[in-house]
Amino acid sequence: MPKISNKGRNMPESPIRKLVPYAEAATRKGRNIYQLNIGQPDIKTPQAALDAVKTNDIEVLSYSHSAGFESYRTKLAAYYKKNDIPVNADEIIVTTGGSEALMFAMGSITDPGDEVIIPEPFYANYNGFATASGVNIVPIKSSIENNFALPPISKFEELISEKTKAIILCNPGNPTGYLYTKEEIEQLAEIALKHDLFIVADEVYREFAYDGVKHHSIMSIPKLAQNAIMVDSVSKRYSMCGARIGCLVSKNQEVMKTAMKFAQARLSPPTFAQIASEAALDTPQEYFDEVIEEYTTRRNILIEGLEKIEGVKVAKPKGAFYCIAELPVENADDFAQWLLEEFEMDNETIMVAPAAGFYSTPNTGLNQVRIAYVLKKENLIRAIEILEVALKQYNK
Amino acid sequence: MPKISNKGRNMPESPIRKLVPYAEAATRKGRNIYQLNIGQPDIKTPQAALDAVKTNDIEVLSYSHSAGFESYRTKLAAYYKKNDIPVNADEIIVTTGGSEALMFAMGSITDPGDEVIIPEPFYANYNGFATASGVNIVPIKSSIENNFALPPISKFEELISEKTKAIILCNPGNPTGYLYTKEEIEQLAEIALKHDLFIVADEVYREFAYDGVKHHSIMSIPKLAQNAIMVDSVSKRYSMCGARIGCLVSKNQEVMKTAMKFAQARLSPPTFAQIASEAALDTPQEYFDEVIEEYTTRRNILIEGLEKIEGVKVAKPKGAFYCIAELPVENADDFAQWLLEEFEMDNETIMVAPAAGFYSTPNTGLNQVRIAYVLKKENLIRAIEILEVALKQYNK
Repeated sequence: MPKISNKGRNMPESPIRKLVPYAEAATRKGRNIYQLNIGQPDIKTPQAALDAVKTNDIEVLSYSHSAGFESYRTKLAAYYKKNDIPVNADEIIVTTGGSEALMFAMGSITDPGDEVIIPEPFYANYNGFATASGVNIVPIKSSIENNFALPPISKFEELISEKTKAIILCNPGNPTGYLYTKEEIEQLAEIALKHDLFIVADEVYREFAYDGVKHHSIMSIPKLAQNAIMVDSVSKRYSMCGARIGCLVSKNQEVMKTAMKFAQARLSPPTFAQIASEAALDTPQEYFDEVIEEYTTRRNILIEGLEKIEGVKVAKPKGAFYCIAELPVENADDFAQWLLEEFEMDNETIMVAPAAGFYSTPNTGLNQVRIAYVLKKENLIRAIEILEVALKQYNK
Repeated sequence: MPKISNKGRNMPESPIRKLVPYAEAATRKGRNIYQLNIGQPDIKTPQAALDAVKTNDIEVLSYSHSAGFESYRTKLAAYYKKNDIPVNADEIIVTTGGSEALMFAMGSITDPGDEVIIPEPFYANYNGFATASGVNIVPIKSSIENNFALPPISKFEELISEKTKAIILCNPGNPTGYLYTKEEIEQLAEIALKHDLFIVADEVYREFAYDGVKHHSIMSIPKLAQNAIMVDSVSKRYSMCGARIGCLVSKNQEVMKTAMKFAQARLSPPTFAQIASEAALDTPQEYFDEVIEEYTTRRNILIEGLEKIEGVKVAKPKGAFYCIAELPVENADDFAQWLLEEFEMDNETIMVAPAAGFYSTPNTGLNQVRIAYVLKKENLIRAIEILEVALKQYNK
């Protein structure tokens, strides 16, 4: 029998998906599960985006340009300019989700054996993309004690080697909810320029910045133009996760020319979803105002609720819609499984993502979970009640 | 300035796209171009597929299952069973185009430095996927002289090394239009079983088999179940290239488990396009009967037309909608560019794909082009007239 590849064997399983079979079994038992484990918002997709797809007049659903519709890229560039990201349509390649943008970025700037530095904890699928590319992630530890702020420059410099090609950043951060300050972004720029590194910034949560704090894009630093690569997506911004539309943005023409070769090999991004994404750009500011207000409320309910539970430690997120919580358990993996397999409170339970999968340093974050506040207020309140009771019962 | 990767530098440019700037310049001059260079059919997408998207009642466009809608995979399995491909829903992963299915297959079965054997000429983007994966393509030459039939087993065995992981096959073939016989598929199976190789069969043109000849899937050989991986797509079958929906199919559970990890890392295939693809499965047989009749007519017009041109040699395709033609020119690349830059006949010209990009052996196919017969009859007839006149003028 032929064998699968080492690469395939080494591909990590998503920490979010590992629990799915237990959740399915619980559902079959009739249990209601509050899903705090996945970043799937319940917010409605803007009607204009949905309508654009319904009223399309396509007769032959043909390939689009490999870089995406020109009309869409032109409107995207205008959106970016409004967000202090001065880019043109030809500095954008539309991709199949932010995931593909990350893959194109990795392919364009790294070879097998190269290294990328990523503040840890980080979006778990970076592990998968790195494994698929044969690239080694060098984690730099950020800590719940200081809210997951950027580690000091000296710590980065300790980790930079000849093989280091890039620093990868998620801002606002999944899973930490951390929003980097202007000073932190400028610090990163200094490191990148000094050591000739790329900075790949995953900014898909740009709009989700709370308490009036402003998001600072890696693209807004003029002297970093040749080093900066931005990854973006419509998934969270417009609650369009299923569209699978993202983009890769850079002012570095060699990077764009290279990424285009990867884009051409896969022909084009999906057409219907591009129609929806282009229309979504007309979404009025009120939509976002409402959404941000809703998430701010949810965040406050969640954080205040978690802080009241004995033994729980939590970093207050300034952006995105996740937080990392430290629980009074030894192994959050076991606890998360127990929640689905054995626990119930009035036939309800919760699903959380064990945080160990968001670290690449072994045996780290074992007592942490990532909680996504993507549920309605009343459901969040109920989910926190369940967590409190569950923790007491688990620790008896 | 940071540097791009060697991999990125080595990524081949698509032979189909290299000419695009010249075509754009010609269009700006007001020239009408008959596009014989790309496999973008002009056939209408089935109305049921388009309507399903228009009447969707989505409010939150959320992620689908990473393997695709279960309902779609169940219907797909039924479609495959009707086509002598006995697979179940859990032996199918829905992908973003056939391209992604190929990437998942490559990632699951090859490591950098491994080799795959591919009958040459082959679909040019296999070069891109191989480069992206660090895999070496070992071409096995098929020849226009015998219509691009499968090379004899002995030739394959000469090329198999310890690093050989798979034979990749496109059937019916792009760019050759060759349709492998049952005996040829069985021969391949013997080689794969003897040497523990995978066979990755790209069968996206399954329906496009002419003259009443039957398509034989690699999946229809029971003893090959653990070695066979099928790549499929809705792009050509339903003229839905822009949907970007394909799938990876295998009865080898280890392959499927591995491919699922790649699928989970990119979250999910596009939702709108899955809705269209699921509805497309209800397309009545009459649609295909008409389409096949249309393509048969087009093929006959094209081949008869080409055969009448002095100095042109062509292999008669039995499937897909391409043919490879040898032209009385030294360098088809130069000729194709000349057609766009300098030639015109009543302000019209044609665009063809130079075939060298479909070979990985250097300096091969230099005087060949790939012609896609995706245009209406009257346009094809006109395009052939233009080619004949252009060749005469070019060779003056």
